[in-house]
Amino acid sequence: MTTPDQHRQMANAIRFLSADAVEAAGSGHPGLPMGAADIATVLFTRFLTFDPRDPDWADRDRFVLSAGHGSMLLYSLLYLLGYDDIDIDEIKNFRQLEARTAGHPEFGHAAGIETTTGPLGQGLGNAVGMALAERIMNARYGDGIVDHYTYVLVGDGCLMEGISQEALALAGHLKLNKLIVLWDDNDITIDGEVSLTDSTDQAARFAASGWNTLRCDGHDPDAIAAAIEAAKASDRPTLVACKTTIGYGAPTKAGTAKVHGSALGAKELAATREALGWDHEPFEIPAAIRDQWRIAGLRSSTHRKEWQRRFAEIDAEIRGDFERRMRGDLPSGFVQAMQRYKRTLNEERPTVATRKASEMALEIINEVVKETIGGSADLTGSNNTRTSQTAAIVPGDYSGRFVHYGIREHAMAAAMNGLALHGGVIPYSGTFLVFSDYCRGAMRLSALMGQRVIYVMTHDSIGLGEDGPTHQPVEHLASLRAMPVMQVFRPADAVETVECWQLALESRHAPSVLALSRQDLPALRLDKHDENRSARGAYEISPASGEAEVTIYATGSEVRIAIEARARLERDGVHTRVVSVPCFELFDQQSPEYQTAILDHGTVNVAIEAGIRQAWDRFIGRDGIFIGMTGFGASGRVADLYEHFGITADAVVAAVEARRASQRPVEDGDGAPTSD
Amino acid sequence: MTTPDQHRQMANAIRFLSADAVEAAGSGHPGLPMGAADIATVLFTRFLTFDPRDPDWADRDRFVLSAGHGSMLLYSLLYLLGYDDIDIDEIKNFRQLEARTAGHPEFGHAAGIETTTGPLGQGLGNAVGMALAERIMNARYGDGIVDHYTYVLVGDGCLMEGISQEALALAGHLKLNKLIVLWDDNDITIDGEVSLTDSTDQAARFAASGWNTLRCDGHDPDAIAAAIEAAKASDRPTLVACKTTIGYGAPTKAGTAKVHGSALGAKELAATREALGWDHEPFEIPAAIRDQWRIAGLRSSTHRKEWQRRFAEIDAEIRGDFERRMRGDLPSGFVQAMQRYKRTLNEERPTVATRKASEMALEIINEVVKETIGGSADLTGSNNTRTSQTAAIVPGDYSGRFVHYGIREHAMAAAMNGLALHGGVIPYSGTFLVFSDYCRGAMRLSALMGQRVIYVMTHDSIGLGEDGPTHQPVEHLASLRAMPVMQVFRPADAVETVECWQLALESRHAPSVLALSRQDLPALRLDKHDENRSARGAYEISPASGEAEVTIYATGSEVRIAIEARARLERDGVHTRVVSVPCFELFDQQSPEYQTAILDHGTVNVAIEAGIRQAWDRFIGRDGIFIGMTGFGASGRVADLYEHFGITADAVVAAVEARRASQRPVEDGDGAPTSD
Repeated sequence: MTTPDQHRQMANAIRFLSADAVEAAGSGHPGLPMGAADIATVLFTRFLTFDPRDPDWADRDRFVLSAGHGSMLLYSLLYLLGYDDIDIDEIKNFRQLEARTAGHPEFGHAAGIETTTGPLGQGLGNAVGMALAERIMNARYGDGIVDHYTYVLVGDGCLMEGISQEALALAGHLKLNKLIVLWDDNDITIDGEVSLTDSTDQAARFAASGWNTLRCDGHDPDAIAAAIEAAKASDRPTLVACKTTIGYGAPTKAGTAKVHGSALGAKELAATREALGWDHEPFEIPAAIRDQWRIAGLRSSTHRKEWQRRFAEIDAEIRGDFERRMRGDLPSGFVQAMQRYKRTLNEERPTVATRKASEMALEIINEVVKETIGGSADLTGSNNTRTSQTAAIVPGDYSGRFVHYGIREHAMAAAMNGLALHGGVIPYSGTFLVFSDYCRGAMRLSALMGQRVIYVMTHDSIGLGEDGPTHQPVEHLASLRAMPVMQVFRPADAVETVECWQLALESRHAPSVLALSRQDLPALRLDKHDENRSARGAYEISPASGEAEVTIYATGSEVRIAIEARARLERDGVHTRVVSVPCFELFDQQSPEYQTAILDHGTVNVAIEAGIRQAWDRFIGRDGIFIGMTGFGASGRVADLYEHFGITADAVVAAVEARRASQRPVEDGDGAPTSD
Repeated sequence: MTTPDQHRQMANAIRFLSADAVEAAGSGHPGLPMGAADIATVLFTRFLTFDPRDPDWADRDRFVLSAGHGSMLLYSLLYLLGYDDIDIDEIKNFRQLEARTAGHPEFGHAAGIETTTGPLGQGLGNAVGMALAERIMNARYGDGIVDHYTYVLVGDGCLMEGISQEALALAGHLKLNKLIVLWDDNDITIDGEVSLTDSTDQAARFAASGWNTLRCDGHDPDAIAAAIEAAKASDRPTLVACKTTIGYGAPTKAGTAKVHGSALGAKELAATREALGWDHEPFEIPAAIRDQWRIAGLRSSTHRKEWQRRFAEIDAEIRGDFERRMRGDLPSGFVQAMQRYKRTLNEERPTVATRKASEMALEIINEVVKETIGGSADLTGSNNTRTSQTAAIVPGDYSGRFVHYGIREHAMAAAMNGLALHGGVIPYSGTFLVFSDYCRGAMRLSALMGQRVIYVMTHDSIGLGEDGPTHQPVEHLASLRAMPVMQVFRPADAVETVECWQLALESRHAPSVLALSRQDLPALRLDKHDENRSARGAYEISPASGEAEVTIYATGSEVRIAIEARARLERDGVHTRVVSVPCFELFDQQSPEYQTAILDHGTVNVAIEAGIRQAWDRFIGRDGIFIGMTGFGASGRVADLYEHFGITADAVVAAVEARRASQRPVEDGDGAPTSD
């Protein structure tokens, strides 16, 4: 058992590693690590179950530092507890290029960093997803294999962000009682006191959504421990409001915004050493204190070994399945199932909306890939994300495979990140494409962390019709393509839809968006081989009958317009090829030879997409003809809208003919072809 | 006084106009108008102060239908009350192309539509802004001139969205007691019963943030009226939970999700007529009922005339100022002040971060333009949005000009929309550019509505340094440029910053983003004339010394790199011009001749921007050289990061030299110049 003095010294080790590292870097956030050091010391030395020698142990407790600016708290802990990835040089290199100790915790930089945080509130959403994943895996594998807690440290900023409400309401509703939120309740934000901007009784707010709420003195180790004990015993998720002093120990700056996001400065840092009785050099941790921390790091070792013994004893098939799921490998038979299904589609050639085609594909996928966890932000019947295999997950019963996330796009996306990070499940969920705007903060983190999170985003253009411009994405394909790592798929028919689903699932280290139509689309693919042609990103779906004079690029619902325009141009003797572009990102990964073969034909180039032009110049060049949107959409019938905005085969043919006329040497005008 | 029977008939008029219009359109949302008809009837016939004959009367009460899918409720009201813009043909044309009665209420389509709603929760955020604008204007012009209420009807969806928490916490904190939220508490969302996804006690949640909360039977007119009376008397904002039955009156579908978003169908609609005793043809409102509604529409006429009399009596200068502000015109002397300040900058040539240059410009602007209302989402000292003129707005005292929005980017943006829509104020506020992801939903509505909302977004690239990739925008310039109407400014130095600020303020019908650097930038502009060169969107900031062989385009902090690269290329005898591109959108609005003069020089083309390439092909073509980012950033010192990611003058010079070498006829390789 730790004595009060030992606790104090151990917490001070966090404080000074943090303050000294920020001082050395010349920037950073000392306030939170200094203020929350007591909470963290109690949690990591008395409660958290983990093993630095096996940091990826599946049944470890998860700890999320939602207030990611306090990264030095986490790095200090990882160093003190004996995680190999963070040695003292990493601490000294805090915030330097190539260091694992980035300004904010970056998933993948070091073992023990469970998620990337910094954008406020995201960690709370991740933690909800992790706690949900734990319950889902527990329902499948039992208490002996999956039974752990998820702890998350949040700051006032996390709680002011709207995502916090979505996340806490979801967790409260689902009764995720193994989720424990430790709130670093220090009354300070960057601008000053919280009272400058907020008058919310946070405990009352959490209680209003069914949470257990507790308060404690965040500098009293026994009070913190008692609160965590009580939280662990609750049948509801728990908020522990830990009252702390930001920058605890800094004589003149503690308790003020000054200590939030700047180095203390040499003088204040020296005075803090004095005040806390810490007479050690920067980055020097006395052996006795370090040993205490290392012993704490070994605390759960026996527990882990017992788990491994239990795990070794379970049915081999179940064990193999569990391990496969935690690795993130797809089950054997997946590819074959996809190919079989594609052959069926090749026979049946259904005319369906791609959102419906997605549901049909999911009906096959969910049968084979048991780890998918579907969902929707209250648009289940519109997103078509629920299949016969996916019973709803309900409070207290986590055996289902479908999450009714509610009208909470942002927390849905953040929770999906948490589901993916926890492992053992593959999350996919739906909303309308236009509402990617509501969850973009979390989508960006899917991309930054390279997580396999699949966003099923239906109603992907003006093709949704009467709901009008607030619901019609126009810039969203471009803006999502702009996001690094994110794969944006826009399939043109049922075959491309299943191909894109396969690619999304096979992308172990990238999130995907499936942009799907509300309106029916005909089957377009005539080839019947097993190759996943969408994997090329762009491919010739309809070749020219002779040497191509025109190339038409298109995606999704506009590919059929391209094919119709091609037919008319060919009828007029104009050799025209059509390239379907289901995924820009995959095309960019093809060989230069393949890219050249697709792009460089010296043809008149046209792109058709019911979105804006941006990003398309990469295919058609500055002089290419673009048939699409230049502004917001409108409310009306689908056919009227396509006509109104000039996204028709007629418009394509007319533009091509005009361009060809202007290029004829006999009609030499000003020489500069104009672009549409 | 309306009798109970009259009330019933008047509410049924809304119900059947709505249900019949949805039926005729074959799509739409009858459930909310039918369920909330009693609430709306009480509000519009007994409380709301407005005049259909002067719909823009400055001191009218504002009504926001946050649950925008219930648009037929609003259209029915506007028709019945006698607003000219909505006649019975508009009702019949619901959801058809060119109709004013779009699927969701669209600001600008008809008088009486105070804001565009549909994306859930936005209307609540708008209403907070409107209520705040009312208090701000009241503090300046007194009770006799500005003294009105803001009512907002929200649904369960609005309250589940995270933005609702941000908005209500802000309103509760600021004690906006003239804000009254009527919650259509019908227990139903699209997926089914609210209990499927949520267990929140909404009244307790609002109360936790300082709201007055009331409950009533949403079908009992006197109970509704009593609640609104009590709400009006409160010293805090009020939530009235009005318990209703969605689709009230539909015999088999009322109270279920079936009536939320689909036409009732002929049979159910006939049965509803039967059940409610409504034996009139579709779109036929008996004269007696219509007359009652028209009388209600005249209710505030006297009140308005009294206001006009009072207004005519106030000091002419104050009156003129009020009228100018409500029109949205800038004060006389604005342009001169900007020009004077630019001349000072031309003399002083300060080396400053553009965020600091923005603060310096605002110090001038806020002196001349008294109607600006600044703010920040808890990054006041980083965004540099506060000047000597802008005291903080605090609970109960709205005489200040700066809003501490708290860590609530989404509600901040939505509230700014409300401030702009209310009129009399020009909102600007700040956060980090990367957190545009958190408020994109509201930013899109600024653009869709064409509102002059100014987003001051600092820390606009990897140039922010150590905070790392979570805080470094990479795709954000592209993704914001993708948004129609939105103007994205990225000034290169202090002079461009003031020019961009002037353009943003002069853009009466478009929102703007000012993307500003954290790091210091030297003064680059050598010309000293008064012309606002940034108004061109792109202009030659540094010409070639002879016939140009190379053109370098750049924005913001990268313009100095372009100029440095130019100097070195010129030294090597390569004639190089530099084009600064502070605003793509304004460049696109220039004449073809101007665009050609900027773009088409037959030079080697280079673009430099510490963001992704997307959108730049429009300037440099597919074969152009792009020096920028291809993925996420990293944590480190600014200089290290620019070096690491190869965004340097060295890299530009090397790329240009390689390209020129590959183009030399003597070294004929494979012929295809490769692009970086």
